[in-house]
Amino acid sequence: MINETMYGLGDEPSVIRELFAYGLARKAEIGAENVYDYSIGNPSVPAPALVKETLLEMLETDPVALHAYSPSAGLPDVREAIAASIRERYGVPATAGHVYMTAGAAAAIAISIAAVSHRDDEVVVVSPYFPEYRTWIEAAGCTVVEVPACQPSFQPDVEALAAVIGPKTSAVIINSPNNPVGAVYTRESLEALAAMLREKEVELDRPLYLISDEPYREITYGAEVPYVPSIYGRTIVCYSYSKALSLPGERIGYVYVSDLADDGDAVSVAIAGAGRALGYVCAPVMLQRVAARCVNEPSDVAAYAENRRILTEGLSALGYEYVEPDGAFYLWVKALEDDANAFSERAKQFELLIVPSDSFGVGGWVRLSYCIARDTIERSMPAFAALKASYEG
Amino acid sequence: MINETMYGLGDEPSVIRELFAYGLARKAEIGAENVYDYSIGNPSVPAPALVKETLLEMLETDPVALHAYSPSAGLPDVREAIAASIRERYGVPATAGHVYMTAGAAAAIAISIAAVSHRDDEVVVVSPYFPEYRTWIEAAGCTVVEVPACQPSFQPDVEALAAVIGPKTSAVIINSPNNPVGAVYTRESLEALAAMLREKEVELDRPLYLISDEPYREITYGAEVPYVPSIYGRTIVCYSYSKALSLPGERIGYVYVSDLADDGDAVSVAIAGAGRALGYVCAPVMLQRVAARCVNEPSDVAAYAENRRILTEGLSALGYEYVEPDGAFYLWVKALEDDANAFSERAKQFELLIVPSDSFGVGGWVRLSYCIARDTIERSMPAFAALKASYEG
Repeated sequence: MINETMYGLGDEPSVIRELFAYGLARKAEIGAENVYDYSIGNPSVPAPALVKETLLEMLETDPVALHAYSPSAGLPDVREAIAASIRERYGVPATAGHVYMTAGAAAAIAISIAAVSHRDDEVVVVSPYFPEYRTWIEAAGCTVVEVPACQPSFQPDVEALAAVIGPKTSAVIINSPNNPVGAVYTRESLEALAAMLREKEVELDRPLYLISDEPYREITYGAEVPYVPSIYGRTIVCYSYSKALSLPGERIGYVYVSDLADDGDAVSVAIAGAGRALGYVCAPVMLQRVAARCVNEPSDVAAYAENRRILTEGLSALGYEYVEPDGAFYLWVKALEDDANAFSERAKQFELLIVPSDSFGVGGWVRLSYCIARDTIERSMPAFAALKASYEG
Repeated sequence: MINETMYGLGDEPSVIRELFAYGLARKAEIGAENVYDYSIGNPSVPAPALVKETLLEMLETDPVALHAYSPSAGLPDVREAIAASIRERYGVPATAGHVYMTAGAAAAIAISIAAVSHRDDEVVVVSPYFPEYRTWIEAAGCTVVEVPACQPSFQPDVEALAAVIGPKTSAVIINSPNNPVGAVYTRESLEALAAMLREKEVELDRPLYLISDEPYREITYGAEVPYVPSIYGRTIVCYSYSKALSLPGERIGYVYVSDLADDGDAVSVAIAGAGRALGYVCAPVMLQRVAARCVNEPSDVAAYAENRRILTEGLSALGYEYVEPDGAFYLWVKALEDDANAFSERAKQFELLIVPSDSFGVGGWVRLSYCIARDTIERSMPAFAALKASYEG
């Protein structure tokens, strides 16, 4: 009588996690240098020196105070440091009371969905999309409604979104810079999306929340990343330091409920309640302090930009098709056969670990995480050549 | 259209958390030394030196590997270290595959309930009980069934439990050493409970899970703490290092699904699925390594034993009635009026922060956390005297 939904989620881990686990085993078997693991978004850039410095300083303070529970929403000075950074960077009137510290963006998104949805509501996503959105939406008892992005820009298709938003819609999730395609939503796109949502709110006489998943906000290659709360009031930002500070395993991030939402205070209360319901007592406290101290540390985007150049030039020379990424550290590559799963399986024969697109909501593509060692990218090119040749034999 | 249940949980934080927050504000107002804060279980004993030593060593290693994602269930060597410790200490055949690392016991319990329950199931608790059990049980769509403990032993009332277990029961939660009363369940009690559950499983033709919440396992004053998985097969241990290693804010613990359960492998899979559904990507990785390294570190029980002696002797001399605690670091004291909330409110006038019993499922008592500075306990005695005198005026 175990819960079969939970059993199913445990028995079929996300395709990304499954490939990541396969990679760990395969590396143990044939040597890490012989596996080209493009599976997971584990940053290859080390955390900024200030992270270590902050942790070392902290460890010299009173351990009782250091490791004590924080209030559920986070340490007050940490929340204020983050609010201040949002005010300074984006010119919006952010207050500490609207910042809720979380164990990463995953927790932030799961909590946000639970806070603004009811069972049997619909949550809209733009495909291709991060596969775990489905897990968290369904865990809240809601239904996923997929709306394909525009082609070939991968901007949100506002008209198509408008067509699916109805009385059961509670929220739309967007993710820019985007995982998996690397698109950065333009101001124009976001303004059109915001205008449509405002119209729909009037038409449906209900609030519509925009959950903005932003772990890659700092990782862009020149494109402007407009701040969503300054464009649409009822925005809930889900942020993570996993990528910006290269701390994915530490689980630290936050929810920021826009102060420009007329119900922002109430939403903040519901966020706190949802965190409590999901078993989050407080975000890890040492990491809360690291986040506050490093709140304005720049990300080492140059390293990813160079990886991007090497990978795209290499694949381009081999004749692969892909979407030119404006942000994040993923390359969305056209599979060499219609069945992306079969393509990903075949790639394994060449020790290439690339994620098939099906769980992102579309067929025929693969995702390559290029936040990996540069050397791995360079050495993988013969494998990509051999993979391609295998389709031409 | 925010979720009113989540709003309610956020708007009325747990009574413990509310009192804790009041205490923080009051200390800022009149000075920390003037507030006698018995509200929360924030250990006053510093973390063992090995915690800092392990963190310092870790910080000298490659930051990319150090802070990377771990597999969802935890680092393999960490899971193995914990399984080995369980085997050695308790003589049960624990395997790493049944250990799932979590962000503390709260996450462990929320995940366990979700893994073995369905909506509209009933989960049984022994009152008085930790109030958040209700939050997590209801978050899984289930109903709380409260069964009072025996009086005055505060052992589980097996007959009364048998009377409420029916076709909708998925699990029973026990907590020994117990928060809030400090009772330690005897082998005899646990064997009677196990025998009853096994009978009910046959009668009802369904598995019944025993969720054993054990954050205080190491904190006892001489009483034997039998290892529940060695007594009942279908046991799910929810453990936390918050108290044993004085790391409550860091959020590290685990679920251990007994290897003696015939469906233990399947339950472990469902645990992993439930963790995923609730947004837990992996437990904080630095802390996973700390847990493994400190897995056999002794807890500084002597400090709590001395606090217990001073507090119980002091209150006894003043004529307060309380339950003699065998474990954990809570004292369950009879309120001086029927309404525990009114009593707790009146105690505030004397700067005494003590938690009323109602949210633990019973009226007329208060809980005192004595994991606080010894000095605070000593200095609080005149306040307890004045509180008592105020009822005698």
